[in-house]
Amino acid sequence: MLLLHLSDVDEASWAKAFAEALAPYPVVRQSDEFDPADIRYIFVWKPKADAFNGLDNLKAVLSLGAGVDALLKHPKLPDAPIVRFVDEDLSQRMSDYVVAHVTMHHRQFTRFQADQKARRWNQYYPPAAGETSVGIMGMGVLGQDAVSRLRPLGFDLRSWSRTPKAIEGVTGFAGDAEFEAFLSGTDILVNLLPLTPETTGILNRQTFAKLRRDRLAGGPAIINAARGGHQRETDIAQALADGTLGAASLDVFEVEPLPQDSPLWEIENCYITPHIAAISNEQSGVRYFSRLLKAHEAGEALPNVVDRSRGY
Amino acid sequence: MLLLHLSDVDEASWAKAFAEALAPYPVVRQSDEFDPADIRYIFVWKPKADAFNGLDNLKAVLSLGAGVDALLKHPKLPDAPIVRFVDEDLSQRMSDYVVAHVTMHHRQFTRFQADQKARRWNQYYPPAAGETSVGIMGMGVLGQDAVSRLRPLGFDLRSWSRTPKAIEGVTGFAGDAEFEAFLSGTDILVNLLPLTPETTGILNRQTFAKLRRDRLAGGPAIINAARGGHQRETDIAQALADGTLGAASLDVFEVEPLPQDSPLWEIENCYITPHIAAISNEQSGVRYFSRLLKAHEAGEALPNVVDRSRGY
Repeated sequence: MLLLHLSDVDEASWAKAFAEALAPYPVVRQSDEFDPADIRYIFVWKPKADAFNGLDNLKAVLSLGAGVDALLKHPKLPDAPIVRFVDEDLSQRMSDYVVAHVTMHHRQFTRFQADQKARRWNQYYPPAAGETSVGIMGMGVLGQDAVSRLRPLGFDLRSWSRTPKAIEGVTGFAGDAEFEAFLSGTDILVNLLPLTPETTGILNRQTFAKLRRDRLAGGPAIINAARGGHQRETDIAQALADGTLGAASLDVFEVEPLPQDSPLWEIENCYITPHIAAISNEQSGVRYFSRLLKAHEAGEALPNVVDRSRGY
Repeated sequence: MLLLHLSDVDEASWAKAFAEALAPYPVVRQSDEFDPADIRYIFVWKPKADAFNGLDNLKAVLSLGAGVDALLKHPKLPDAPIVRFVDEDLSQRMSDYVVAHVTMHHRQFTRFQADQKARRWNQYYPPAAGETSVGIMGMGVLGQDAVSRLRPLGFDLRSWSRTPKAIEGVTGFAGDAEFEAFLSGTDILVNLLPLTPETTGILNRQTFAKLRRDRLAGGPAIINAARGGHQRETDIAQALADGTLGAASLDVFEVEPLPQDSPLWEIENCYITPHIAAISNEQSGVRYFSRLLKAHEAGEALPNVVDRSRGY
């Protein structure tokens, strides 16, 4: 039996779609009557404190989110394998966001918008994509999808990850030892890391100061599409004000929704979106987890299982 | 002998680079002493009225610009073949501009910037790239390069050209008869046409009204990276004001520099850049035309010769 426990999303709609996709396999919601001992799978999004009560026979926890940092902190998280949502549609949408913001900073929107406001005809020519480097932190499914989109655009690509990754057309850096070398050649920094104790607060003043400064006219840019916990917002505000950063695109924040009194709202070279870079699409979510559940019931191993020691 | 006649660009610098690349072939400037009858090639950019005086033995006119609409109107244009600049670097830079503005409109920057200004946390999710169509007018070298960059991003691509073109992954439309069908499925319209009597003013109110309206939340968008003569600016201002268009990116204008009193400067969903989408890079220009001149002297045919009856 599959149990749904979804906060902040339309659970009824998902329940209906799962029931159709899995029929005759039973699907229940927290509000239905059922025996917790019958539940083999639980599908969660922001599970509440009581979400896992009595679920002693779980085969897997299915996480709608691609990031599981919050889920791993749940005080009553059962010992069953946790399966992350890995999905082409989600990756595509995330890359859509990344490409739009990389190209915006590469083409110096902040500068041209300021010129437009001042009615200034100032013929500045941005560097070609091949003269501009994009450094991507995190080379998981999302990082690799972003590479596959940015490479045909001609950017000079570099990556930084926990362990070395060999990806065609990308200069790879790994671990603490190579972090400075990675940053020193990066004009536009894209964060797609999982949030772990090691990556918390990685987007800070020391990091920004090490980026390459002589290529993009306005200064280096950062793009955070991962988690608000990765960034120090006071450092970002200061770096944007004093020119350490030329621009920032932030889709995630330390506190969400971003508080009304945050100084970020008013900073002209800070591009805010309300955690909409990529959504876990219902149709592809149901397809992914239904196939996975049926395959597992037929004896196949679970894919994309979270390594709790790594944190993702 | 190669004669340079360049307005608005540093002729001395080009002359030096050409002299080095072509040595011992002689290179002169208009200000040098020479016999006009000795000139076999002239390299031009915005040639003045007297540019071609006395050049009776020309083998070719070499045009620094990719667009030759202004050159073709020169009252003393000689009868020699005109060679357009076709260059990977120029195409790359043009595609950089096109991709940046396509993805900006796809990801609804105008909307998110308005939300940011109002400190509004409004979780609107843009459609995926595959749910968004980009219609490119003009399938020459620049149009095809743009296709090669936009296709890996996942956009639904369509093209419109004078004669039918079969391009992989692109739904092709051609001629007047198919113009409406092309527009009716286009969310983001990109103009890369040559400027000819037929294409003058093609970006007008009637065209805008035929674009697809139900996909992009803010309404359809246009991007003009070709020539100011393609657009009716009063129509654009009106269409942006009344919602016929959701946004416009304009790199070219009916009069350049864009006059101080143009209403376009102040329109929030009009993204102005000062004719900087792509520059004809000196290094690649010298390389391209030097090779071409040497090859022609060695008996090879000239590439990329303008068809005067078509106008490009």
